Amino acid sequence: MTATRLGIIMYGATGRIGVNQHLANSLDVLRRSQLKTSNGRLVELDLILVGRDPQKLAEVAAAHGISRWTTDLDSALADESNQIFFDCAATNLRYGLLEKAIRAGKHVYCEKPLAERPEEAVRLANLATQRGVKHGVVMANLWLPGLVKLQRLLKADYFGKVLSVRGEFGYWIFEGDWQLGQRPSWNYRAEDGGGIILDMLCHWHYMLAQLFGPITQVHCMKSTQIQNRWDEQGRLYRATAEDTAFVTGLIEDKVPVQINVSWATRVRRDDLLTIHIDGTHGSAVVGARDCFIQPRTLTPKPVWNPDSQAARNYFADWSPVPDNQTFENAFKAQWQAFIDHVVTGVAFPWDFFMGAEGVQLAATCHTSAEEKRLCVVPRVARPADHSTTQGCTAG
Amino acid sequence: MTATRLGIIMYGATGRIGVNQHLANSLDVLRRSQLKTSNGRLVELDLILVGRDPQKLAEVAAAHGISRWTTDLDSALADESNQIFFDCAATNLRYGLLEKAIRAGKHVYCEKPLAERPEEAVRLANLATQRGVKHGVVMANLWLPGLVKLQRLLKADYFGKVLSVRGEFGYWIFEGDWQLGQRPSWNYRAEDGGGIILDMLCHWHYMLAQLFGPITQVHCMKSTQIQNRWDEQGRLYRATAEDTAFVTGLIEDKVPVQINVSWATRVRRDDLLTIHIDGTHGSAVVGARDCFIQPRTLTPKPVWNPDSQAARNYFADWSPVPDNQTFENAFKAQWQAFIDHVVTGVAFPWDFFMGAEGVQLAATCHTSAEEKRLCVVPRVARPADHSTTQGCTAG
Amino acid sequence: MTATRLGIIMYGATGRIGVNQHLANSLDVLRRSQLKTSNGRLVELDLILVGRDPQKLAEVAAAHGISRWTTDLDSALADESNQIFFDCAATNLRYGLLEKAIRAGKHVYCEKPLAERPEEAVRLANLATQRGVKHGVVMANLWLPGLVKLQRLLKADYFGKVLSVRGEFGYWIFEGDWQLGQRPSWNYRAEDGGGIILDMLCHWHYMLAQLFGPITQVHCMKSTQIQNRWDEQGRLYRATAEDTAFVTGLIEDKVPVQINVSWATRVRRDDLLTIHIDGTHGSAVVGARDCFIQPRTLTPKPVWNPDSQAARNYFADWSPVPDNQTFENAFKAQWQAFIDHVVTGVAFPWDFFMGAEGVQLAATCHTSAEEKRLCVVPRVARPADHSTTQGCTAG
Amino acid sequence: MTATRLGIIMYGATGRIGVNQHLANSLDVLRRSQLKTSNGRLVELDLILVGRDPQKLAEVAAAHGISRWTTDLDSALADESNQIFFDCAATNLRYGLLEKAIRAGKHVYCEKPLAERPEEAVRLANLATQRGVKHGVVMANLWLPGLVKLQRLLKADYFGKVLSVRGEFGYWIFEGDWQLGQRPSWNYRAEDGGGIILDMLCHWHYMLAQLFGPITQVHCMKSTQIQNRWDEQGRLYRATAEDTAFVTGLIEDKVPVQINVSWATRVRRDDLLTIHIDGTHGSAVVGARDCFIQPRTLTPKPVWNPDSQAARNYFADWSPVPDNQTFENAFKAQWQAFIDHVVTGVAFPWDFFMGAEGVQLAATCHTSAEEKRLCVVPRVARPADHSTTQGCTAG
Repeated sequence: MTATRLGIIMYGATGRIGVNQHLANSLDVLRRSQLKTSNGRLVELDLILVGRDPQKLAEVAAAHGISRWTTDLDSALADESNQIFFDCAATNLRYGLLEKAIRAGKHVYCEKPLAERPEEAVRLANLATQRGVKHGVVMANLWLPGLVKLQRLLKADYFGKVLSVRGEFGYWIFEGDWQLGQRPSWNYRAEDGGGIILDMLCHWHYMLAQLFGPITQVHCMKSTQIQNRWDEQGRLYRATAEDTAFVTGLIEDKVPVQINVSWATRVRRDDLLTIHIDGTHGSAVVGARDCFIQPRTLTPKPVWNPDSQAARNYFADWSPVPDNQTFENAFKAQWQAFIDHVVTGVAFPWDFFMGAEGVQLAATCHTSAEEKRLCVVPRVARPADHSTTQGCTAG
Repeated sequence: MTATRLGIIMYGATGRIGVNQHLANSLDVLRRSQLKTSNGRLVELDLILVGRDPQKLAEVAAAHGISRWTTDLDSALADESNQIFFDCAATNLRYGLLEKAIRAGKHVYCEKPLAERPEEAVRLANLATQRGVKHGVVMANLWLPGLVKLQRLLKADYFGKVLSVRGEFGYWIFEGDWQLGQRPSWNYRAEDGGGIILDMLCHWHYMLAQLFGPITQVHCMKSTQIQNRWDEQGRLYRATAEDTAFVTGLIEDKVPVQINVSWATRVRRDDLLTIHIDGTHGSAVVGARDCFIQPRTLTPKPVWNPDSQAARNYFADWSPVPDNQTFENAFKAQWQAFIDHVVTGVAFPWDFFMGAEGVQLAATCHTSAEEKRLCVVPRVARPADHSTTQGCTAG
Repeated sequence: MTATRLGIIMYGATGRIGVNQHLANSLDVLRRSQLKTSNGRLVELDLILVGRDPQKLAEVAAAHGISRWTTDLDSALADESNQIFFDCAATNLRYGLLEKAIRAGKHVYCEKPLAERPEEAVRLANLATQRGVKHGVVMANLWLPGLVKLQRLLKADYFGKVLSVRGEFGYWIFEGDWQLGQRPSWNYRAEDGGGIILDMLCHWHYMLAQLFGPITQVHCMKSTQIQNRWDEQGRLYRATAEDTAFVTGLIEDKVPVQINVSWATRVRRDDLLTIHIDGTHGSAVVGARDCFIQPRTLTPKPVWNPDSQAARNYFADWSPVPDNQTFENAFKAQWQAFIDHVVTGVAFPWDFFMGAEGVQLAATCHTSAEEKRLCVVPRVARPADHSTTQGCTAG
Repeated sequence: MTATRLGIIMYGATGRIGVNQHLANSLDVLRRSQLKTSNGRLVELDLILVGRDPQKLAEVAAAHGISRWTTDLDSALADESNQIFFDCAATNLRYGLLEKAIRAGKHVYCEKPLAERPEEAVRLANLATQRGVKHGVVMANLWLPGLVKLQRLLKADYFGKVLSVRGEFGYWIFEGDWQLGQRPSWNYRAEDGGGIILDMLCHWHYMLAQLFGPITQVHCMKSTQIQNRWDEQGRLYRATAEDTAFVTGLIEDKVPVQINVSWATRVRRDDLLTIHIDGTHGSAVVGARDCFIQPRTLTPKPVWNPDSQAARNYFADWSPVPDNQTFENAFKAQWQAFIDHVVTGVAFPWDFFMGAEGVQLAATCHTSAEEKRLCVVPRVARPADHSTTQGCTAG
């Protein structure tokens, strides 16, 4: 069987997430394996690294056994043997890069957020649709083992009626003086595209939309908790972007939802990312790997008695959902799905429209915080022939 | 030394909280001990039970060795040897009872909420002030061991700058069909004074006001999650009051605060009541009994790596604050403080004005939920000579 | 309020079960309490012990503060102030005693089995109905905490479709030579009414009938495993009654059921009595006190790999259903229900017809074992106005 | 010493059990070792893989360092250097393949069941005997560590008189909709040779026959508990084969035996496969690896007291039999015995007659379920010179 060759432009893949997740854990593995599409076609991946720093490009290419690299994006786009353009460089460059790639007729795949502003994101989605190229956004959290288990629970109709959904993400990002900060400093500067809302609400959008339906109304309280930080060079700077947001809202105008995101909190919960779902027939608390449940038949009837010395252990009332399968790396799983989509045309729900919805949710949170009111999240219109993505299942 | 006799009218003390906390754990114990005021005067308590069911009154009186009981409130109020009127009967009767007692010249003490509506609560506070009687509201949570430990942390300036405060209260109240509900059914009917906001936001007001300062702005999303419930007689009824509220707001216009209260959630946290405080120098998670801290020197730098099999145990990063003292029953401690206040005039910050602020906060939450906006909490004006209560310390 | 006096003839109550369960744990407690019927009437119990051994009667009466005892049953029956006749003496006397009591117009209540042969049991049920007296059989296992929890699961529709039910009861009864047997020797002699089938299948009938529906077809393999035993006087005797039976059958002609009973087995399971229920949505294993469940969302996918050193702990995959209530003594609970039935006429499903069904099931097991075939269990006909008992709930 | 070369045709060894157990764990290991017969002759194994899919054959051959493979069975059988024919392909092909191999003069060895119908199985056994070829069926469970320990107990006359034997096998096989089924879908279709009785009763026959003697009478209740399943392609299909059977019977017309097999049960016992044996002098519960015993000297005398809060831990009354040896892989051990039998002629009790008895037991279970009666299991007649296999010992 002769393999279909697929040329992929990797833009900005010399950063941390590019090297670790997109190369080492995903494409390197897929290139070493007998990669097959859902209809049995063998695919051979041929990567070309593109970026601005030739030394870094050469180093990464060598380390990953990639023969092609260049700093000349235009020539890479001009080469017809490169069918896919992938971008995981800085957010503020994304719009321009993707527009160029779409106009060059490339299928486009990128990290989130799709753009900095919702109107830009929608414009990209419509442009890609008009030009007939395939498009997708990385939404890797959907393949996290914990979320795959949660999707199983939903398929099994475990919850009865879902009553409320509460998500938390965050951890303590050091200020940078007495201990180095573990995230890039631009994250904390509004003028450089920073802020936790744009960074994280895109994630929350696709997770909740796929699992429970889209958030249609939001209230947001945002705050810059840590105002003085020290950058990569140890220089004091003013943090101008919010590092914390408390969001409440409604899923499909009816299920109360709460999302807390913060880079200025210390974690006392099961995981950095957790989702607590209460339903009439049972509850679940989901982390990146684990998923604990308490069905109503195991729900205790605690007594409020602060005089009692021996407090009930409320954690012991929950049971871990067993793995019952091997979990793939999330990035690799989505790459495989996107490649299959490009080669065979099978459905790929995690497209630019879904990506644009995430950017829209983030923007609406900012509006709410500024206008101090509950806001309706504007709907992202899809072309008529483009069915909704909800209900599709990862893992 | 001859003892000062203090006659106390106990109204509605035949209910669960009256019998267990106010009689058995508080006044029974104080009556058996040599009760002394802060300036050394011996006090002798002489209770009279007042209510509507003579059989219940007789039974409770006998069980607690109380010689006086009556169904005739007017005669009890007319008796000048009764100086204090205490009410822990139903909320919707409270305003009328307290007004009558104040006009009869009694010192007044009562369970929360002080009234159903903020204007009523304020009227009672002003009336009591004008008439020169002492007044207080039960705010027993302030004496919970966990909160006493938290007050210790604040005194020690443990947190540095307090960045955010997040409170949770709630547990699963059974619907009443396949398992009996563990709370009275009127709690779930708006027409009977039910609803978790009035019930719980009064508590949250005094806890946060005393610890961190009053909440000045709130946004509230409320919901009746369980709409069909079965009452004490096993009859289906429609729940009309909210059983869940997600509140976000600001303490003193600057510190973000979040309060979740729910009777339709399954508990995966340290206690039924928890408060998570993040500060620049450390964080704490407080329950009714325990208080766990993570100072910045012990703060981990976790890596987001969902591929790793062995997740970090984020609970192990926290240390319990030691008891270092014996904790009194909360209700008894506050009774003793109120009696001291009546007899000697020492400060008692938990007065009707503070009680009225709690009712005001609850009412503002309802307004916010209905008007879908962040609301400023109206300030409860105190008479000029009446200093603010903040900064006083329990425990 | 003046109390209704209820005279109760206790026949054979000087034996172990009579003294421990019916007197000490049940009637003694009810007599000391303010016993009230469901419609609020106060009831005063006046017991009279009847039996054959005056010394034993006198001793037991004294120990339990009972003023009346006699060896003259006829006079006790003649006394109109005695309205209830209760029998917990030997099985082979029961038919005659109950017939006499019914003819004397007494309400009748007794230990199981109702009679030795199904035709006798049915005759008693019809006679009691014709004479208009109330009738009931002790079916105390229904109030065991484990079974109450199981009834909760059924009410919550936990199982989905019930697929199969497997019960086990039994333990090792010592032979009597090197260690004393812990049950009376007549249990092991067919000629004295012994045998585990009559003893235990009556229990299994009411438990399964009430929980899942009646067994309508049975196959039974019976065996006398231990053939030489030593009696209370240390004399060797021949065991002629079966001490073990493996029963398989169908509940309502559709759900496979299995019941193992044995006095010659060593116990490696959660309790002496266990029921394992498998359903489409979850399984449960129920003992006398505990109830463990494994819902389908927590069901592991084990791999058959005997080469692996570390076996999976299959017990760890189950969670205990929380108590969530206080459990009454089973015998006391059923006594209270029977007394309520007698005084107020409220429904009491555990009547002689249900008792007769248990005797019928036991008899059909013997037929099956002898005829080596699956047998249909003959239906016990109730008078037209007598509704079926299924679906009623204990606990 | 020159080695005896043994050519082995491996038919259908590209499936899971073929690759893992017969190749990787057995023949690969034996080929790498200095394989010697019981009389000291060195044996060299020369495998040839035969099957229908050349790509799979090539892949498996390469992975296991096997130089010979072909899709042409006839030529492999024609090659006189291949003395053994082994089959672990699909059950419904087995009869034809084995007949052909016997007629070609090959020694024959195969997975269970030997055939789909007992008359076919007997015919193969007689044909092989007439043709003078050696024959054997895989009965690997006999070498499970747990069963080896049980054989030790029997040799030590631990049980006294064996009173009863109860076996259980099974676990939950997912339906295939919300979680993938972990067994092939043909197992659940009668028309494709599926059904748990044929699959598992063959195992139970050889285990019980070798340990305690053959089952001579059986009653069987069978059921298709899960009727809708989803196949390997996610398509709904109707399950037509039984997935559960409750079998009771007698070993050698006297010892009661019970066997439960189910693919629709959730496991609360020591292992997926367990055998509980009660004897006059002691009991044992055996799993695949472990064996727990309770000799009569350690037997407790439990009291039936459901009012007691603290239940006895009945598991703590049992002690694990120590390993005291290294356990070989079961498949490898039996391969070695069969090779020894072929080369030297030493006894090999696990022959086609024993295999045919297993098929006969399964068929009799079906007859019993259909005719609703206890059935005598027809005896498989052996040629006069062929001694009985009972009493031989594995491990």
